[in-house]
Amino acid sequence: MPPPCPRTSYRRSTKCRRRIVKTPVSVIGTGRMGSALARAFIKNGHPTTVWNRTPHKAEPLAALGATVAESVDRAISASGIVVVNVSDYDASAALLHRAAGTLRGKLIVELTSGTPQGARGAAEWAKAQGADYLDGAILATPNLIGSAQGVILVSGPLAAFTAHKDTLLSLGNVRHVGEDPGTASTLDSAALSQMWGGLFGTLHAIALCEAEKVDLAALAQQWTETAPVIEGLISDLIARTKAKRFAGDEQTLSSISAHHGALQHLIEITQMRNLDRGLVDAYDTVFRRAVAAGHLEDDFAAMTRFMEKSA
Amino acid sequence: MPPPCPRTSYRRSTKCRRRIVKTPVSVIGTGRMGSALARAFIKNGHPTTVWNRTPHKAEPLAALGATVAESVDRAISASGIVVVNVSDYDASAALLHRAAGTLRGKLIVELTSGTPQGARGAAEWAKAQGADYLDGAILATPNLIGSAQGVILVSGPLAAFTAHKDTLLSLGNVRHVGEDPGTASTLDSAALSQMWGGLFGTLHAIALCEAEKVDLAALAQQWTETAPVIEGLISDLIARTKAKRFAGDEQTLSSISAHHGALQHLIEITQMRNLDRGLVDAYDTVFRRAVAAGHLEDDFAAMTRFMEKSA
Repeated sequence: MPPPCPRTSYRRSTKCRRRIVKTPVSVIGTGRMGSALARAFIKNGHPTTVWNRTPHKAEPLAALGATVAESVDRAISASGIVVVNVSDYDASAALLHRAAGTLRGKLIVELTSGTPQGARGAAEWAKAQGADYLDGAILATPNLIGSAQGVILVSGPLAAFTAHKDTLLSLGNVRHVGEDPGTASTLDSAALSQMWGGLFGTLHAIALCEAEKVDLAALAQQWTETAPVIEGLISDLIARTKAKRFAGDEQTLSSISAHHGALQHLIEITQMRNLDRGLVDAYDTVFRRAVAAGHLEDDFAAMTRFMEKSA
Repeated sequence: MPPPCPRTSYRRSTKCRRRIVKTPVSVIGTGRMGSALARAFIKNGHPTTVWNRTPHKAEPLAALGATVAESVDRAISASGIVVVNVSDYDASAALLHRAAGTLRGKLIVELTSGTPQGARGAAEWAKAQGADYLDGAILATPNLIGSAQGVILVSGPLAAFTAHKDTLLSLGNVRHVGEDPGTASTLDSAALSQMWGGLFGTLHAIALCEAEKVDLAALAQQWTETAPVIEGLISDLIARTKAKRFAGDEQTLSSISAHHGALQHLIEITQMRNLDRGLVDAYDTVFRRAVAAGHLEDDFAAMTRFMEKSA
């Protein structure tokens, strides 16, 4: 049995640190991700209250020490910080609107996926209820929550983030990315867009190899060499766009004209093998706009000027 | 002045190695890439003959020691190995067909970009002329030719590759990838497909950030973290498809259902901001096919079964 902590060293002694009472938190929604968030809080010693629409999904958390609340009102009342992770913003709004009277003085951390517009709307509403609001986007799978790879972006008032940073860091690598509550959601959508770009480009590559009877082991081997090259091209694309360096220059490896010419071979094979043309046609449409506007010899980065839907 | 090489040590003395006569080569087409190929041969000591439709583009190579041929016939007659790098297969065929009588016993190395079908057709034709034929795909920019990063895939008879490997290695990291002459072109198209997937996913991500006024510096910073994650997802996609592990299992991070749900937010923002829907609609189409076929809980790799154009 450890000796009792002398009052004076209550917050200083390493041995007694575990006795410090941590900030209570509530987690609304205990699906796979919500449960991972609750577990991370529990593991870090936060008194944790949970609520879920179907209570049985919250039970495993009770066994770990969480308090299962009987209503959203009670869950919110139990803590100063309320983390929400449900199916979508509409579901979240329906729950919070019914419990609006309990929100004054609370910090809502909305980790449900949605749009930047949805985040800004929810922030406005929360403010009207006298609550602080941070909107977050989880760039990690449930197994990574609580670890350094558990990247969570949050946006909204920096003061609210700073005041509760220690508690939020229990969830993993939580970073404040901007005062506009829509920023985290925008960066989340951007990451997903980059992920699907890579995955669908690879689905098409796999389909080509299968149609032409090329062993996927060769594609896997090639990917180990091409991945770092593509990674560099993407970094360059972002940097050039930020700097507005759209004209072809000595660092330009392939002009828009060269890219567009090479794409025609890919379209030809795609058509010949009866593969889905959706991707290559989408690429071609943007190239044609850039070419029609006279950007033949420009760097690929000039393509960023042609991503709006044509009238 | 170095001492004359004694006959007996002609091929053994390091000092005299430079005097060994290297295999003569001819390069048809001296655009940016063709000139880089010719320069790599010249640098490695190969007697090099070049031909270009517009002769002035070959002149800088003459200054480096190349012989500029007056006709394709003469260029082919000058060497046992003929490397072709022109605008497309039609242009290549037009040149070679006119010089058909000079091809017997030669090795044609076709490095013009094209389709696997085009490569197989050209291989058949070359065989009928009594020539060996290797079809290649250059996965590098001209500045990398001759270096370890100058990756060139060739396919066709292994015997022809092996017999001339030493000469071909002057061009860089030249690798034989299969007996089927269409293999190099297929892998080239697959690499381009993966490249454009990543680049267009990023164009969309940039457009989102610009529409939502999120600084591209935040996207650049995020990419340094997400790139290795996406790289791993892509490797996993290829490996799972090769092993036909399509069912969701404990390594599945997100089911097709979870992916498709998240995509709906991206579609919503894309529409709200009037961005081009081509990419997200192309993704959605394939997801809908997989969902309709009952693959909701399968791994993303099951999407590879739905890349054929629907009837």
